[in-house]
Amino acid sequence: MVFFPSPVLVVATYDEKGKPNAMTAAWGGICCSDPPCVTVSLRKATYTYNSLIEKKAYTINIPGKGLAEEADYFGIASGRDDDKFTVTGLTPVKADHVDAPYIKEFPISLECRIIHIADLGLHTMFVGEVLDAKVESGMFDNESTPLIEQVMPLVFASNSRNYYAIGEEIGKAFSIGNAIKRGS
Amino acid sequence: MVFFPSPVLVVATYDEKGKPNAMTAAWGGICCSDPPCVTVSLRKATYTYNSLIEKKAYTINIPGKGLAEEADYFGIASGRDDDKFTVTGLTPVKADHVDAPYIKEFPISLECRIIHIADLGLHTMFVGEVLDAKVESGMFDNESTPLIEQVMPLVFASNSRNYYAIGEEIGKAFSIGNAIKRGS
Repeated sequence: MVFFPSPVLVVATYDEKGKPNAMTAAWGGICCSDPPCVTVSLRKATYTYNSLIEKKAYTINIPGKGLAEEADYFGIASGRDDDKFTVTGLTPVKADHVDAPYIKEFPISLECRIIHIADLGLHTMFVGEVLDAKVESGMFDNESTPLIEQVMPLVFASNSRNYYAIGEEIGKAFSIGNAIKRGS
Repeated sequence: MVFFPSPVLVVATYDEKGKPNAMTAAWGGICCSDPPCVTVSLRKATYTYNSLIEKKAYTINIPGKGLAEEADYFGIASGRDDDKFTVTGLTPVKADHVDAPYIKEFPISLECRIIHIADLGLHTMFVGEVLDAKVESGMFDNESTPLIEQVMPLVFASNSRNYYAIGEEIGKAFSIGNAIKRGS
């Protein structure tokens, strides 16, 4: 689909036996500010789908560009066949607020409990309320705001299937448009 | 919320009198491949909210970085007070498949019919089935794939509220992770 940009989201869950697993999804985004909620959509055929239905919980882990290969691997392999944490050497840590692991080495992890599910066709959309956000130290500005320039999240082009970095700053939202408003 | 990256989506609608309007939203994303669907979330207080409930249709217009000021203006002003198309000088064109206008000067426009609504709290999430996508000529590669490098969509940092461009290519999805898979 021609919709730019998409995020790169690594969804981490425990399976029915409690084994940590993670898969990568690009269909998702913020969907509410209060309560803070995000969507992520998966195919029913994925191993993670069953864990989401069972546990009603997951974490979203956002890779920086140094984790691009690991994030891509999480999207290629299946938890049915691989222990992806053993293969990557990354560390699953039990989340504080939900029955799911987060990935210690990722710069951002959001703990989510599922509050809404919509079966839309090939994909099922899960809406998760974000109960906690963990951000790696060193990713903040002087006022404790996590900086996108520090996190350097991957950006996904949904049609050509390429990953990109964030580029130059274009301007400040709720600000640069005032030139047009004043001119009217 | 610390969720990176977010898109910049200009949602265009007709109001109850048929007047074209547009507003900018950053809470949204792809949510299904087949049928192709996208989400966008708005506050009930927006003028566009009423048009969406009435018309069950909208377009999503994705600005290139040359349209950053216009996109920001669409997010600052309200259709209750301003005729935003007159102010910006941009052109609303009746969509082919839904009762909504698209913005002629934007590089990508998606025609959407609403198939699912979820009231989540401060924001209401609308799921739209994409019935048509219009892409400006000159945005394609040799195989007729629209290129993110040509479109140069804005990227939004949801916490610091800055707009960014797309940066360098990091790698190919479903490919760069094979190095890890093979190594296992």
